[in-house]
Amino acid sequence: MPIVTLTTDFGTSDWFAGTMKGVVLGIAPRARIVDITHDVPSGDIRTGAFALAAACAYFPKGTIHVAIVDPGVGGSRAALAVKTKRFHFVGPDNGILSMALAAEKGVAAHRIENAAFMLQRPSRTFHGRDIFSPVAAHLACGVPITRLGPKVKDYVRLAIPTPEMDAGQRRGEVLHVDRFGNAITNIPAEAINALGGELQVTVARRTMPVRDHYEAVPNGSPVAVIGSCGFLEIAVNSGNAARRLGLKRGTRVTARQTRTVPKPFSR
Amino acid sequence: MPIVTLTTDFGTSDWFAGTMKGVVLGIAPRARIVDITHDVPSGDIRTGAFALAAACAYFPKGTIHVAIVDPGVGGSRAALAVKTKRFHFVGPDNGILSMALAAEKGVAAHRIENAAFMLQRPSRTFHGRDIFSPVAAHLACGVPITRLGPKVKDYVRLAIPTPEMDAGQRRGEVLHVDRFGNAITNIPAEAINALGGELQVTVARRTMPVRDHYEAVPNGSPVAVIGSCGFLEIAVNSGNAARRLGLKRGTRVTARQTRTVPKPFSR
Amino acid sequence: MPIVTLTTDFGTSDWFAGTMKGVVLGIAPRARIVDITHDVPSGDIRTGAFALAAACAYFPKGTIHVAIVDPGVGGSRAALAVKTKRFHFVGPDNGILSMALAAEKGVAAHRIENAAFMLQRPSRTFHGRDIFSPVAAHLACGVPITRLGPKVKDYVRLAIPTPEMDAGQRRGEVLHVDRFGNAITNIPAEAINALGGELQVTVARRTMPVRDHYEAVPNGSPVAVIGSCGFLEIAVNSGNAARRLGLKRGTRVTARQTRTVPKPFSR
Repeated sequence: MPIVTLTTDFGTSDWFAGTMKGVVLGIAPRARIVDITHDVPSGDIRTGAFALAAACAYFPKGTIHVAIVDPGVGGSRAALAVKTKRFHFVGPDNGILSMALAAEKGVAAHRIENAAFMLQRPSRTFHGRDIFSPVAAHLACGVPITRLGPKVKDYVRLAIPTPEMDAGQRRGEVLHVDRFGNAITNIPAEAINALGGELQVTVARRTMPVRDHYEAVPNGSPVAVIGSCGFLEIAVNSGNAARRLGLKRGTRVTARQTRTVPKPFSR
Repeated sequence: MPIVTLTTDFGTSDWFAGTMKGVVLGIAPRARIVDITHDVPSGDIRTGAFALAAACAYFPKGTIHVAIVDPGVGGSRAALAVKTKRFHFVGPDNGILSMALAAEKGVAAHRIENAAFMLQRPSRTFHGRDIFSPVAAHLACGVPITRLGPKVKDYVRLAIPTPEMDAGQRRGEVLHVDRFGNAITNIPAEAINALGGELQVTVARRTMPVRDHYEAVPNGSPVAVIGSCGFLEIAVNSGNAARRLGLKRGTRVTARQTRTVPKPFSR
Repeated sequence: MPIVTLTTDFGTSDWFAGTMKGVVLGIAPRARIVDITHDVPSGDIRTGAFALAAACAYFPKGTIHVAIVDPGVGGSRAALAVKTKRFHFVGPDNGILSMALAAEKGVAAHRIENAAFMLQRPSRTFHGRDIFSPVAAHLACGVPITRLGPKVKDYVRLAIPTPEMDAGQRRGEVLHVDRFGNAITNIPAEAINALGGELQVTVARRTMPVRDHYEAVPNGSPVAVIGSCGFLEIAVNSGNAARRLGLKRGTRVTARQTRTVPKPFSR
């Protein structure tokens, strides 16, 4: 029986996520349910999309990924179920699935319309419980995606800012700040590796070396690393880079090749 | 093997909820454990009772619902196990189970007294681990509730404020503010539907229309909807109604019929 | 199939914990995964070690406990897998496992070195996903610990402050403040019981009686109890002792025998 993952902004202080699990297990009693996160900031589709994209590939083939950050619930946005070569994805058609789908092959998206796979009389305010959970559970039970509704040609895609690549330089921006205050940028590892030589990174008027792990600089010093998502990441060894350097989504980051050995960090 | 749900104020930063799961799985290795929430505000029985009542019916028949908000742990309050037509409920006899039980049929409540179904030498400060978890696990394994202790005639019931129904008007109050800032009232959908015609809701000196989903009003505008629990709910489209309008548990809410089309919201 | 528990400082707002579960289930599809906590304060090894030690013994024999608070990830610290008479433990060699191991018998620690049991090309910043999760999953599948790497003679142990025992008096300190504001000390129940007679506890210039449960004193009054971990604990009935009395890790606590009946608490 496949895994069903949940990525939402429902929080954990109400009963929303738990209720979804009750619905899934009522239909697919042997499904394994895994929380990716329920603490996406309220209504922040972009952060939810990033979390799903960062996590989904680490699940086994056949996993059903449900992602719900859905300020337009009950309105005109469509509900989607998407089949890819290795996974199913389920969620509102507002971009929440799009960053994950960008890395998938064999993408076929269907509009969820068949009420037979929803709870009876679905509410207009909690499709997570009434539509997305039962659909995910039915997919887990082997219902073919084609029964959920018609195939759609396209779906909403979030614009993902692409880094600028110049000779000896990469310019990008912060995509996500994690709970440690590490700032994940949109500059991929390959773009950094292609630069070669000694590198330095400038962000928020501070310059720092690129190293292969946090402890390669003194405690409290900023450092750029290739993070676990495969992107350049700004950190402070044993500290909170976002707070220390004032970083947030959209902060500009430049990585450049330098012949000189980078100067050690000083205030 | 049945599902065991957990609704507590134990938080997730300590080991309390995890330890309960270890105890359950030690006795009932194949039980499925689902968190409803562990983030009930510390000692807030009413909020815990509301969360349990909102979630429990979405679980399959046979589920064992454990709810623990228990400031009187170790004192004179009884420990309860309750059988209903479709579920078991386990928790302290302080009202935490009562809102959920109000919707159940065939309610039989037993006082938990049989030490054979508790951990050895239970503490006086963590009955979640030492009494309620093992009892839930034994119920999951098929132990009849009658073996836990004697049937009791009654149990503590929280007073649930009932709305006032006048011709053309419903007066109630906020029961719960959720993580989105939506304020769930005690006015049931049927009471609203029975009013018919054009409706407007007044809360905190603001008047707003009743619509069927959040997006039916402009971004940032207040709106009343029938929420997913089946009660009138005050929201702000893509905003936080509780913060914007100053709503909290107990805030008075009035819904009234109006012949005139409600004026669009304006500041 | 054994249980895998997780104790980390990864938080729940990012995808870190969820991703670990995907990796575990990809290798050991029938493993049961239980969160102890992911909300250890960022980098706080001591709090993580305490949570693991408080919870681990309540899990069934054969459980694999994974604990990761790892500010030195990717640096020179070793990765450990430890077999004891009843459990396996997996985590960085920085003390995070040491409080739990202090209560275990038959401890054999191995350095994790065999890349066959890691993800391919492990990152230098997320060993939770790339090393500790796959290792735990392989242990769950029955891989003998000896295949992971060489046995090591010793591992990093956190210094645990021991209480001073004088005739008629115990002096210790606060080890942990829990989500209720209860302050757990390092003075064990046996040391208190050995004192006998009427006892009073002094902390932060306040004196309070020792009672067997919170409600034995009036609402809002401080009280010392033997807590559920088996240590003297400072509480306020239906209140937050840490906030009320200004307690934190390291605050000094004295318990002493007194012939006189302790005076009731007054401001």
